Amino acid sequence: MEIYPLDRYYFSSKESVVDKDGTHEDRIRRLQSNYGAHGLRTCVRGVLLVELYQQPHVLLLQVRNSTFSLPGGRLRPGESDTAGLKRKLSRKLSHNNSDDGDWEVGECIGMWWRSDFETLPYPYMPRKPKECTKLFLVSLPMAWQFVVPRNMKLLAVPIRQLHDNCKTYGPIISGIPQLLSKFTIKIMQD
Amino acid sequence: MEIYPLDRYYFSSKESVVDKDGTHEDRIRRLQSNYGAHGLRTCVRGVLLVELYQQPHVLLLQVRNSTFSLPGGRLRPGESDTAGLKRKLSRKLSHNNSDDGDWEVGECIGMWWRSDFETLPYPYMPRKPKECTKLFLVSLPMAWQFVVPRNMKLLAVPIRQLHDNCKTYGPIISGIPQLLSKFTIKIMQD
Repeated sequence: MEIYPLDRYYFSSKESVVDKDGTHEDRIRRLQSNYGAHGLRTCVRGVLLVELYQQPHVLLLQVRNSTFSLPGGRLRPGESDTAGLKRKLSRKLSHNNSDDGDWEVGECIGMWWRSDFETLPYPYMPRKPKECTKLFLVSLPMAWQFVVPRNMKLLAVPIRQLHDNCKTYGPIISGIPQLLSKFTIKIMQD
Repeated sequence: MEIYPLDRYYFSSKESVVDKDGTHEDRIRRLQSNYGAHGLRTCVRGVLLVELYQQPHVLLLQVRNSTFSLPGGRLRPGESDTAGLKRKLSRKLSHNNSDDGDWEVGECIGMWWRSDFETLPYPYMPRKPKECTKLFLVSLPMAWQFVVPRNMKLLAVPIRQLHDNCKTYGPIISGIPQLLSKFTIKIMQD
C-alpha cells in the first residue's frame, strides 16, 4: 500500500453540514424510529492514510471539538457500498457535494455491528443486528484537494496513537491499526 | 469462509512436546540470546475455526492450565511462512511430527511486532523490531484427526468470548474477532 506525505494535499473549507442529531437522546430516538421503518442500518466509512514525520496517519473528522469519526455515513436504500461511500466522501471532503469524485475505494477491511444504538459495537454479528458499519480502504492519489465543512476539522492522527485507545477514539477507530497490520505500507517520497 | 461442526473432528493425544522455556526469565534470556545471534525472530500462527452451538469458535492450545496460544511457532532460517506453519501445525496437532500434512494455509490476516521480549506486542512495526508474529487463516476440511501433545489441551473458544478480552487471552488472540470481521462465515451443516 502506497501513501503520500500530507504536504502533497491542499485543504480548504465549505459551508457547514447540517447536524441532524441535536442531543444524544434525539439521535437515539431518530435511529430507533429509522430502524422501525427501514430495518438494518448500513454505514460505510473510509480509511484514508497519509504520511507525516515518517509515520502513517489516519484522516479523522472531528465535530464540535469532541467526537472523532471516519468520513462516511449511512447508505441509501438500494445503494451499493462503493457508490454510497463515494457520495459520503464527497459530501464531507470535496468541493462538490453531489459529485461522486474520483475516490478510489479499495477492499473492505472490517465490519462492526450494533444490537442496539446505545451500547458499543461488536466485531461479529449479534442475533438481531440493528446497525452494520463497514470499513473500506480508500487510496489517495499523489495530490488532492480536500474541502471540509466549516463545522468539522480534518485531522491526521498517527496509527500508534489510535492503537489500544478505545477511550479517546472508540472501538472502531482504535482497532484500525490491527486491521491495517497485514499490509506493508510504503511511504512515497519526492 | 466455510466452517464445519466440531463433532466432525476426532481428537487423540501423543507424547508431550518438550518445553524449552523453564521459567519466564529463562525464556527471556533465550529469546535475547537468539536475537543477538540471528536477528529478527519471525513466528507464524494459524487461526482454525469450527462451529459449536451455532457459533464460530477458534481453536486454542492451552499449556499447563494457564497460557493460551494459537498453534504455530518460530520459522527456521530461510523457511517460508507457509512451510513453517504447516510444519508447526503438524508438530502440535498431527500424528506425524515431521509431516507437512494437508494443512490448507490461507491469507495472512494480521501481524504483530515486539520491540523487546518483555512488553506487549504492537499491530505496527516499531523502529527496531525484535519479533514479528504473522497470523494466517487455516481452512479445515469436513473431517480431520487432531493429535495433541499430552502436556497441552486443545480448546474451542467462541469468537465473542475472545473479543475485548486482552486480560485473559492477550492482545493477539483477543484481536482475532476484528481480523475476522470482514469475512462472512458460513456454517456447514449435515
